Amino acid sequence: MLTGRSSFRSTWQWDFLVSDLKRFSRAYYTASVGGEPSPELVDSICSEYRTMGISIVISIGGGSVIDTGKAVSAMLSKDGPVEDYLEGVGTKAHNGEKVPFIAVPTTSGTGSEATKNAVISIIGEKGYKKSLRHDNFIPDIALIDPELTLSCPSDITAACGMDAFTQLLESYVSTKSSLITDALAYSGLERIKNSLLSSFENGMEDVKARTDMAYASYISGITLANAGLGVVHGFASSIGARFEIPHGVVCGTLLGISTRVSIEEMRKKAPAAIGLLKYADIGRLFNRETGKNRDYYCDALIEFIEELTEKLKLPSLGKYGLDESKYKAIVEATEVKNNPVDLEKYDLERILKERA
Amino acid sequence: MLTGRSSFRSTWQWDFLVSDLKRFSRAYYTASVGGEPSPELVDSICSEYRTMGISIVISIGGGSVIDTGKAVSAMLSKDGPVEDYLEGVGTKAHNGEKVPFIAVPTTSGTGSEATKNAVISIIGEKGYKKSLRHDNFIPDIALIDPELTLSCPSDITAACGMDAFTQLLESYVSTKSSLITDALAYSGLERIKNSLLSSFENGMEDVKARTDMAYASYISGITLANAGLGVVHGFASSIGARFEIPHGVVCGTLLGISTRVSIEEMRKKAPAAIGLLKYADIGRLFNRETGKNRDYYCDALIEFIEELTEKLKLPSLGKYGLDESKYKAIVEATEVKNNPVDLEKYDLERILKERA
Repeated sequence: MLTGRSSFRSTWQWDFLVSDLKRFSRAYYTASVGGEPSPELVDSICSEYRTMGISIVISIGGGSVIDTGKAVSAMLSKDGPVEDYLEGVGTKAHNGEKVPFIAVPTTSGTGSEATKNAVISIIGEKGYKKSLRHDNFIPDIALIDPELTLSCPSDITAACGMDAFTQLLESYVSTKSSLITDALAYSGLERIKNSLLSSFENGMEDVKARTDMAYASYISGITLANAGLGVVHGFASSIGARFEIPHGVVCGTLLGISTRVSIEEMRKKAPAAIGLLKYADIGRLFNRETGKNRDYYCDALIEFIEELTEKLKLPSLGKYGLDESKYKAIVEATEVKNNPVDLEKYDLERILKERA
Repeated sequence: MLTGRSSFRSTWQWDFLVSDLKRFSRAYYTASVGGEPSPELVDSICSEYRTMGISIVISIGGGSVIDTGKAVSAMLSKDGPVEDYLEGVGTKAHNGEKVPFIAVPTTSGTGSEATKNAVISIIGEKGYKKSLRHDNFIPDIALIDPELTLSCPSDITAACGMDAFTQLLESYVSTKSSLITDALAYSGLERIKNSLLSSFENGMEDVKARTDMAYASYISGITLANAGLGVVHGFASSIGARFEIPHGVVCGTLLGISTRVSIEEMRKKAPAAIGLLKYADIGRLFNRETGKNRDYYCDALIEFIEELTEKLKLPSLGKYGLDESKYKAIVEATEVKNNPVDLEKYDLERILKERA
């Protein structure tokens, strides 16, 4: 059982779980995960437990804990290091054999409980964020109980919620989106509208808001896996590989300005682009006015996200030591992924400056 | 290429298609389908074309034409009659081998363009409506062009639209529904709200309404295949096997009263049932009032459907010769499927009487 550094293990649910395991004479081991998973962490957990006959891996925690468990469940039966199997790093293809894996999210954000990849990072000059991926790595059980997120601190609630929001919006406007992912993403965005702010402001008590956000997170995992993501997640990789900034903070702090720049560029380069209509769909969803035109709703969307970013008190990048001297390297390493419009290096730099 | 009796072949699109086929020297054969497919129809088309080296089957038409094509594409490579492979009729399991199949719907209703089954019927005292089913039978291409539905007559538009509505609502409240089918069904029901009536009243011109209904139909095929259906489709089988009533008419004419009876029975038997909350979700979607309670929205849903049934001028069952002497046999043969509440024979009879 993997958990975060302390949070879940100080709850009554943990006591309950452990006493039940004892009652039924189930042997268990615990390991804790601090921060996003590194290859070393996955390898060290695997070497410790590889010969112990582990029959099931359970992650109870945020995206990092779930990704660590997902990778451990995939690597317990292999001999070499996890780097051998990482996309763009190693050369081996994983055959999908794994120990059964249960994901129990205690934050609402990454949607990792629904996806087939674990993101593994090395942070620094030569850092990377890369995926261990196989269809079989979708958790065998995703046990999503919104009550487990009630005690999630408000800053983490905000960052994770903005991650889910970003994943839903980016997959909705993605060049790889489909009717199916659109309907799913839209249903998640409705929950974001109703509940992201209240889960931040009143998260200790508001089970309805927590439930909506748990749904939004889970669905965002499905839509990102099937429709892809955009430039904000391009930044999440290039920045996240170099700086210790929580993934949700990178996404949340950059979503407003990235949406603004994408909309502005489409207006210039492709004013009839379907991407503008899709941004307008979501602007309309978030707006009280009816019967306005596409431009109105695109602007309303930008305004909504920028106001939300303020209210959620999302920190700027500068707070984590990301200054202008790093922009060039980051911009070079940033992919726009399936963003509805291609962006120039100039645009990418402009996005970073805006949230300096 | 299978079409309906005449409609599509009198359009400029047909001329265009045929002239293109000639230009590229593609040999083609045509067959027409009148009414819902019988085993004889499928078998006779297959025996005529089995030795012709057919490389692709294309259905351009309504649900009956698509189901016929789906069955023909599955039976061209088999020797025996289609009845051998029908669920609950034959004893053979189809291995899924088929000729590639393209579905081009010209009505918005059954969702057959998205499903893996073809419904084959014999109508009469010993009639049946049964499925030929295999995962491979999902059309290889569903070419959904709402402009092809512009010329669909208003009575057929109404009946087909109510079929899609029924499929969406029944799968939304189904005991087999999931988060995913809920989100998809809800997105289809939003289109029903905005566009079913206008596709009926102004269908020759309203491309937006036709597009919404084409979406609703397609999505309803996905949700019915994954979440199942309810008592209205139970009646569609038991009545459809005995009387020549278009499938959409049976669904459309029974949806209002079936919803009323299901809601009433749940209020009596299981007032905390999730089914009531789900009916209320849709009542809220169709209603202007905000902040009302569950009961209010359940009543609003019933009222909405009953008013819509009036406006769409859906005929009653009596018009097709279904009188009280037939009720007993029909009730005996009716399954409630995945209806959110079980219904007694008394309730089923009450539903029939209401639309006598």
